[in-house]
Amino acid sequence: MAIRAAVAGASGYAGGELLRLLLAHPEVEIGALTGNSNAGQPLAALQPHLLPLADRVLAPTGAEALAGHDVVFLALPHGQSAAVAEQLGDQVLVIDCGADFRLEDAADWEKFYGSPHAGTWPYGLPELPGARAALKGSRRVAVPGCYPTAVSLALFPAYAAGLVGPEAVIVAATGTSGAGKSPKPHLLGSEVMGSMSPYGVGGGHRHTPEMIQNLSTAAGERVSVSFTPTLAPMSRGILATCSAPAKPGVTAGALRAAYEKALGDEPFVHLLPEGQWPSTAAVYGSNTALLQVAHDEAVGRVIVISAIDNLTKGTAGGAVQSMNIALGLPEELGLSTIGVAP
Amino acid sequence: MAIRAAVAGASGYAGGELLRLLLAHPEVEIGALTGNSNAGQPLAALQPHLLPLADRVLAPTGAEALAGHDVVFLALPHGQSAAVAEQLGDQVLVIDCGADFRLEDAADWEKFYGSPHAGTWPYGLPELPGARAALKGSRRVAVPGCYPTAVSLALFPAYAAGLVGPEAVIVAATGTSGAGKSPKPHLLGSEVMGSMSPYGVGGGHRHTPEMIQNLSTAAGERVSVSFTPTLAPMSRGILATCSAPAKPGVTAGALRAAYEKALGDEPFVHLLPEGQWPSTAAVYGSNTALLQVAHDEAVGRVIVISAIDNLTKGTAGGAVQSMNIALGLPEELGLSTIGVAP
Amino acid sequence: MAIRAAVAGASGYAGGELLRLLLAHPEVEIGALTGNSNAGQPLAALQPHLLPLADRVLAPTGAEALAGHDVVFLALPHGQSAAVAEQLGDQVLVIDCGADFRLEDAADWEKFYGSPHAGTWPYGLPELPGARAALKGSRRVAVPGCYPTAVSLALFPAYAAGLVGPEAVIVAATGTSGAGKSPKPHLLGSEVMGSMSPYGVGGGHRHTPEMIQNLSTAAGERVSVSFTPTLAPMSRGILATCSAPAKPGVTAGALRAAYEKALGDEPFVHLLPEGQWPSTAAVYGSNTALLQVAHDEAVGRVIVISAIDNLTKGTAGGAVQSMNIALGLPEELGLSTIGVAP
Amino acid sequence: MAIRAAVAGASGYAGGELLRLLLAHPEVEIGALTGNSNAGQPLAALQPHLLPLADRVLAPTGAEALAGHDVVFLALPHGQSAAVAEQLGDQVLVIDCGADFRLEDAADWEKFYGSPHAGTWPYGLPELPGARAALKGSRRVAVPGCYPTAVSLALFPAYAAGLVGPEAVIVAATGTSGAGKSPKPHLLGSEVMGSMSPYGVGGGHRHTPEMIQNLSTAAGERVSVSFTPTLAPMSRGILATCSAPAKPGVTAGALRAAYEKALGDEPFVHLLPEGQWPSTAAVYGSNTALLQVAHDEAVGRVIVISAIDNLTKGTAGGAVQSMNIALGLPEELGLSTIGVAP
Repeated sequence: MAIRAAVAGASGYAGGELLRLLLAHPEVEIGALTGNSNAGQPLAALQPHLLPLADRVLAPTGAEALAGHDVVFLALPHGQSAAVAEQLGDQVLVIDCGADFRLEDAADWEKFYGSPHAGTWPYGLPELPGARAALKGSRRVAVPGCYPTAVSLALFPAYAAGLVGPEAVIVAATGTSGAGKSPKPHLLGSEVMGSMSPYGVGGGHRHTPEMIQNLSTAAGERVSVSFTPTLAPMSRGILATCSAPAKPGVTAGALRAAYEKALGDEPFVHLLPEGQWPSTAAVYGSNTALLQVAHDEAVGRVIVISAIDNLTKGTAGGAVQSMNIALGLPEELGLSTIGVAP
Repeated sequence: MAIRAAVAGASGYAGGELLRLLLAHPEVEIGALTGNSNAGQPLAALQPHLLPLADRVLAPTGAEALAGHDVVFLALPHGQSAAVAEQLGDQVLVIDCGADFRLEDAADWEKFYGSPHAGTWPYGLPELPGARAALKGSRRVAVPGCYPTAVSLALFPAYAAGLVGPEAVIVAATGTSGAGKSPKPHLLGSEVMGSMSPYGVGGGHRHTPEMIQNLSTAAGERVSVSFTPTLAPMSRGILATCSAPAKPGVTAGALRAAYEKALGDEPFVHLLPEGQWPSTAAVYGSNTALLQVAHDEAVGRVIVISAIDNLTKGTAGGAVQSMNIALGLPEELGLSTIGVAP
Repeated sequence: MAIRAAVAGASGYAGGELLRLLLAHPEVEIGALTGNSNAGQPLAALQPHLLPLADRVLAPTGAEALAGHDVVFLALPHGQSAAVAEQLGDQVLVIDCGADFRLEDAADWEKFYGSPHAGTWPYGLPELPGARAALKGSRRVAVPGCYPTAVSLALFPAYAAGLVGPEAVIVAATGTSGAGKSPKPHLLGSEVMGSMSPYGVGGGHRHTPEMIQNLSTAAGERVSVSFTPTLAPMSRGILATCSAPAKPGVTAGALRAAYEKALGDEPFVHLLPEGQWPSTAAVYGSNTALLQVAHDEAVGRVIVISAIDNLTKGTAGGAVQSMNIALGLPEELGLSTIGVAP
Repeated sequence: MAIRAAVAGASGYAGGELLRLLLAHPEVEIGALTGNSNAGQPLAALQPHLLPLADRVLAPTGAEALAGHDVVFLALPHGQSAAVAEQLGDQVLVIDCGADFRLEDAADWEKFYGSPHAGTWPYGLPELPGARAALKGSRRVAVPGCYPTAVSLALFPAYAAGLVGPEAVIVAATGTSGAGKSPKPHLLGSEVMGSMSPYGVGGGHRHTPEMIQNLSTAAGERVSVSFTPTLAPMSRGILATCSAPAKPGVTAGALRAAYEKALGDEPFVHLLPEGQWPSTAAVYGSNTALLQVAHDEAVGRVIVISAIDNLTKGTAGGAVQSMNIALGLPEELGLSTIGVAP
């Protein structure tokens, strides 16, 4: 018997990617699709790449449309998920791709988002220690942010193994789809093609406390994160360059061994062979995070590079992976480790 | 019992796309992978997006590696397919993604390729009238060129219905993957990003006689094709702008009706709703051709726009679709109409 | 004594390019800069590439700011130029980069723009026969559209020489800056990168009557134009593929000779050596139109390819060139034939 | 009387950019152009954007062609400059865009380049303390690497003012032109479009010792540099994200004041107004470095972002600026602070 899934926010980039993945999921039947300003429009006009759903029409987001499903994915602007989730009942699996339920610390939430904290749900990054247990059987999931996914997967093994000190420095490049589909001048093709630019420099990006939360948990001590996001001239992908001071005595061999041990059985996180480096092209449309590690002896730092597709592993793929775990399905069901390249 | 498939030329773009699709095909087991200059290398270094095949090592292209398969896909430089095919035996399904067996007219071949004609195999564009019958049970398939796929699908319904005159004018833009993976200065990222440029102007492109062949067959008379290909700053995709003089009395309604009739049951060719136009983004990685038609009354021309992914429907997807037909499998098996966007 | 120039619409792409060129013009002093929604903002925030003007603040568009200049460039949405121009007096050189005064035929204007015709000004494409004489001393100039610039320069020599028949077929690719800076979903970087898409197919693009006007004048008979514009994943540039039926007896040699004769003395239109084809990269930021011609004997068509920078020769460069002529300055003053590549 | 300038290596990207700038220099007359594999070809085929030089033919690189000039620019593969320079005589100003004479420490050279050290020439980054004095009247100039230009300009003021500790962490994104015009598979458009990828991770990039040299000199103590370069899908531009630990007591105000003081009179390095961040688009084709600084109090780091055009300020512009100083010309002559955008 199929799992009936609804998607709230089906006209945006996260919503479209959820639908792309759910269409390929053997156990899922796609139910209601909702939107706000686009309610009443057919998906053909909004997501022309999703041909099998071309004739589906968006309903207004709300309990009326979203009731009666086994799973409801929320791809809404932050601040809107709590109200919708409350209407859906405790038996429905609600998977929030927004930020509302990611942070454990209410003060962090209020500082970065300026509104009351809605709560904390089990965190949908199954690769983190303990995450799978919390997701299993849960009926609420907070999907991680795309940057925290790339960064946490890159650094948690080093922190968990005690190989690096607590001052992490992260510079990441993202494709423009991470900024959403709402048209703004700086996101115009004319502005982004041929250009790299930073934003949220100096600690202001809202994904920062989420990274700190994940890495501190792995380290067992407070980790600080200097995070600089940059906008790259591409639609999809995050390349995160993550580094931290190597603890005394760390060697390249020990580093690699720690990653092999931490990630060896992970279906969606892959440590590349030595000498090969991640690229976002290699994970385009796939649920894989590609990693490579280095030990720069001259400066005493560990450098880890990760590449993900921000819409797949960074959002919708992570959401589906969490759904599989929550519902007791095989974790890899409907998800691919094959990118579309070149 | 799985179909064992080998891919000769597995390090190139067409080879990589074949493998991407075959990995998703429920009846296929991937056998030998071969290359020339890259023989001995693992696929991890050559096609890093194909994670499930990372450890596979390329064998030298030849009968030794390719023997013992049910299907052998050839993604070789033109002129090399005949010799390989001869070694494989008549019971093996040989699907040639190269040009060698596409043309019926030996003189055309010799004029455009400057070498002796190798012969003609059943043509792997199933949507053309009569093509499915020829493919069914065949053990040899000539996969069409990417441009002829886009152009023939765009115009054959108009020619078959007798709505347009024989002087077609085609201007098409292609992504750079169509030019292959062999490094040449004009294909460098520095050269193609931010630039549009034409090539093979004035009738010299080798895909021209193939378009003429297909459209003339549909029209039942000799069609002439003015074809100008252009290189666009994108990796994948073909957008073909095709036009021909409208025959007297043709109306927009009759035009649309002819396309609906010709394409209504086609799983991989989709006439868009009125008012919506194809984009290559909407077919990125999918096996779909998107079409839209217009009748410009002021100039008396029919304009048809088609968008395909040159590597999928334009090469590897067409090859797999033809394999399905040749082997008596459901035609859509393992192929997707869902693009990866944005 | 410097020429004082004002730019109305200085926050947009055409306005920014005008300023870039005027900054390099040895006889021009930049006066008032105006905008509408951006009035009050410093140029640093709107055109960060124009460092020498960073501290200039936009005034509201209107006679108050624009009075007291020798030249006023209008880079406004169509329909707004007439009212502004009327306030400026007959002695001021007004150069309109909008569409309002381009068309000679009021019925064409009303059909394509749906509003009353404002009139016709001398046309700022100096290379067209008779255009320089009309521009000399004029105090009003209508700058051509970017597509008509590319297409008219490509085909007028063939029409003027009587080498081609009246049914022209044009397919052109443009960079996204041609669509302006006003944010719309289909112009987002996420949508345009990696994608080619058509628009205004079937005769609906507003630049069509302008092309017909120019080519018909050159031909001495009514020319029809089938025009299909496409949006390419690049910020700047137009590549126009233009063709028309060759008249009987036309040869490649005669064709080339006609272009050499028509363009031999032109500083900004360059017929490439045989065997070399235009690319938009080669004219990035330059005022040059690059051309190449071909005669496809097999189909009896002449094909002419032109490449321009839509913002330079296609808008602001053409405007400055016309200003030079109108004011009796050397036509090339302040304009460059050097592109920025790669 | 014009300065006669020759360019050795005129077919590459650095050579082309040198010619673009020299064409705009009012005191320079362009003399011999040389190449190796491209000797004998006209520049029209190699640098089609340099229309005024289209008919110039490349001579073989060597003393025969290069003799008799006032200035010779070398844009050669590293290791070749010394031999050419020796043949030119002490009175000729030789400006080497290669790496050969940049490093002061022979051991560094040998470690990173694996060949004997050729020597050290005055360093062509005039903004560094003491650099202008060394360049004045010199007849030898070593033009900095593109990354060291971006990074040194970003961090030298903080080090010179004693505001940051010695452990710098740099992540930079470069356009593909930095990798040159020699065709390699990973530089194909198909590979780089839509993809970010790192290289030389872990301390291996040859520009690292040059950064250490510059920053250590500014700091008056040994600075360590963790440097990760990444390849971005754009032709031009470097965006460098540079950070270092803030010294105790540093404030945002003190930081900004130090940069204003260090850079206030610099014509080509511009500290942006607060709230505005550099982008590579804003310096496309210009000789400007745009900077912005931030103090992340939560982590105790100073972050400085710089954007340059790798071919202009990062190579050819820096070379021309150094030429101006060496010859006693106004430093800004022939150089522009105006970018080409969008």
